[in-house]
Amino acid sequence: MRKYRLMSPGPTPVPEKVLLRMADTIIHHRTPQFGNILKDVNSKIKKVFSTKNPVFIFASSGTGAMEASVTGLLSKGDKALIINGGKFGERFGKICQAYGVKTVDYDVTWGESASPEIVKKLLKENPDIKAVYGTLCETSTGVVNDIKKIGEVVSVTDAVFVVDAISGLLADEFRPDDWGVDVVVCGSQKGFMLPPGLAFLSLGPKAEKLVEKSNLPKFYFDLKAAKKSHAKDDTPWTPAVSLITGLDSVLDMVLAEGLDNVLTRHARLARATREAVKAIGLEVFSKSPSNAVTAVKVPEGFDGTVLVKKMRDEQSITIAGGQSELKGKIFRIAHLGYMDEYDTIGAIAGVEIVLSQMGYPIELGKGVGKAQELLK
Amino acid sequence: MRKYRLMSPGPTPVPEKVLLRMADTIIHHRTPQFGNILKDVNSKIKKVFSTKNPVFIFASSGTGAMEASVTGLLSKGDKALIINGGKFGERFGKICQAYGVKTVDYDVTWGESASPEIVKKLLKENPDIKAVYGTLCETSTGVVNDIKKIGEVVSVTDAVFVVDAISGLLADEFRPDDWGVDVVVCGSQKGFMLPPGLAFLSLGPKAEKLVEKSNLPKFYFDLKAAKKSHAKDDTPWTPAVSLITGLDSVLDMVLAEGLDNVLTRHARLARATREAVKAIGLEVFSKSPSNAVTAVKVPEGFDGTVLVKKMRDEQSITIAGGQSELKGKIFRIAHLGYMDEYDTIGAIAGVEIVLSQMGYPIELGKGVGKAQELLK
Repeated sequence: MRKYRLMSPGPTPVPEKVLLRMADTIIHHRTPQFGNILKDVNSKIKKVFSTKNPVFIFASSGTGAMEASVTGLLSKGDKALIINGGKFGERFGKICQAYGVKTVDYDVTWGESASPEIVKKLLKENPDIKAVYGTLCETSTGVVNDIKKIGEVVSVTDAVFVVDAISGLLADEFRPDDWGVDVVVCGSQKGFMLPPGLAFLSLGPKAEKLVEKSNLPKFYFDLKAAKKSHAKDDTPWTPAVSLITGLDSVLDMVLAEGLDNVLTRHARLARATREAVKAIGLEVFSKSPSNAVTAVKVPEGFDGTVLVKKMRDEQSITIAGGQSELKGKIFRIAHLGYMDEYDTIGAIAGVEIVLSQMGYPIELGKGVGKAQELLK
Repeated sequence: MRKYRLMSPGPTPVPEKVLLRMADTIIHHRTPQFGNILKDVNSKIKKVFSTKNPVFIFASSGTGAMEASVTGLLSKGDKALIINGGKFGERFGKICQAYGVKTVDYDVTWGESASPEIVKKLLKENPDIKAVYGTLCETSTGVVNDIKKIGEVVSVTDAVFVVDAISGLLADEFRPDDWGVDVVVCGSQKGFMLPPGLAFLSLGPKAEKLVEKSNLPKFYFDLKAAKKSHAKDDTPWTPAVSLITGLDSVLDMVLAEGLDNVLTRHARLARATREAVKAIGLEVFSKSPSNAVTAVKVPEGFDGTVLVKKMRDEQSITIAGGQSELKGKIFRIAHLGYMDEYDTIGAIAGVEIVLSQMGYPIELGKGVGKAQELLK
């Protein structure tokens, strides 16, 4: 018997009581009973998003809401600025491409955060940019971007600022309304502690004007339809009923813990992980590390793919490897959602054991000890 | 205490053991463990679809797969034939409109089934039609269409035949491969006995050729990406993990019961319902009644909205009312998914009680007795 430990940056573990809530009798979505749940959810999720704007809920994975933020806002011939520092920044560019939106590409070196100065320069050079697409936490590199500073730059222009906060929300500080963020995109299987299957999108007043004018084709992810239904605490299409009842429960959990406490918890776990891996001689990959996920460089001469596989198959701990150009070169440990001190300590202990099995010179317990010190 | 009885044509009740399976530990989607589940599911779902073609799974409600069947197959300037006999046939037309696809609209009188002869005539008049969009069971009217005969007509032309079997699959006989159906669209919350949140699309060889050529914009619902991932038992985006493990369980249940037995069960429940309502003097709305859902005319002088509301609020039985032009004029009882004789008997008993409370002259037990006779 080995327990299954999910330490990847999505999906993340779901609290048992939420799993059981979702196992309750399925109710019909066009009833006052479900309408009341949705009304509650619509109100609570705004608090968790730290926004006054409505938050629309889609039955889809996060990519669906990313698509909605392109097709819902833009029109034929529009130009968008893509801040691309990894797999998920890149995805915004691909979606724009699929819909014929012209892009100005700001390619950020993987592992580094985007420079607000460069965003400013690009916006100045391209005053016709309609929207800037950025990422709070770039899951593929473990980088958190300075959304506040980028927001300052974007908010004084006519462009709207869309932020993919799919993995960052609830882990990294994020105040969209104060920071000039007009649209936030999120998903259920990260900080929200739910299974994958829901995507969220908050829509601010500056972006709403674009929605009214947008002429890119869309149907399922139509923001006008979403907005119209949301005003009646309804959804345009059949909602994912069980996941939404689960959402009702996790929102209660997050609000009971308190947003600031949730952020502090993530920050503690992330810092302990960073210091622990440093204590065993490893290097954190990200120059601006997120509190959602820590990306660690695999030591020279070792194969990260083997490490991740041994962690999963022998230790029963699922962490993530590197994607694309980082394949084999980094491993990623999440601190996301339903995780506490002993989950983090366990993951570090597992990494120590596996690295030692792989022949990396290590004193077992050194990284764990460092984490204990910081988490005691 | 009143139990919640869900007798609507989607969502439908979920078996308790499936609810509990979905409440199991969430696992990561890019692991051999989940890959094996998906491989199994991909193989079993083909049997349930009665097809040799691959069946793609989307995290979305059924409408998402409907959209995929438009944007994935068609190109700019293409023409499609829309067989529109209710809310869901109409939806195909709206999706085509949203993406600039020209439509030939065959408006079928609500409550009647589509005529294969008219489809033939329209295809002859419009030899440039690339795809015909039809519905197996039109949920809004309780009509089952003669897909076999329409398929005969379409299959001898160059057009592909796309069938929305969202509510019909597993309730009405349906043999896509034998009947000349190229693409089948389905959803999780009907015959599949799952919560809403998954959509399915099977893709046959004739349709695959269109997919290769299609140039309508798409991203999340891109069939090329779905096909590529499916070949590796993977998904392009994060799948709805818990719903897919639930799918694994319901597919086992359906295959253990046997497809023919499942269809016979639905046919028995539907027939008993039709005969029961006739026994109390009511009329079945549909001229070609589906075994997924029975639409019944509300007697002259009575308000169907009140009946549905009293059923829900006083009897705790959720049936469906009429939509759009049928609002208040029909009520709909489903026989869909996890339902048996006593669910049907209960629903009929509830309708009798409520109609009698509303002043409709009725001998309590008359409809129920008829159902008992047919279901004993």
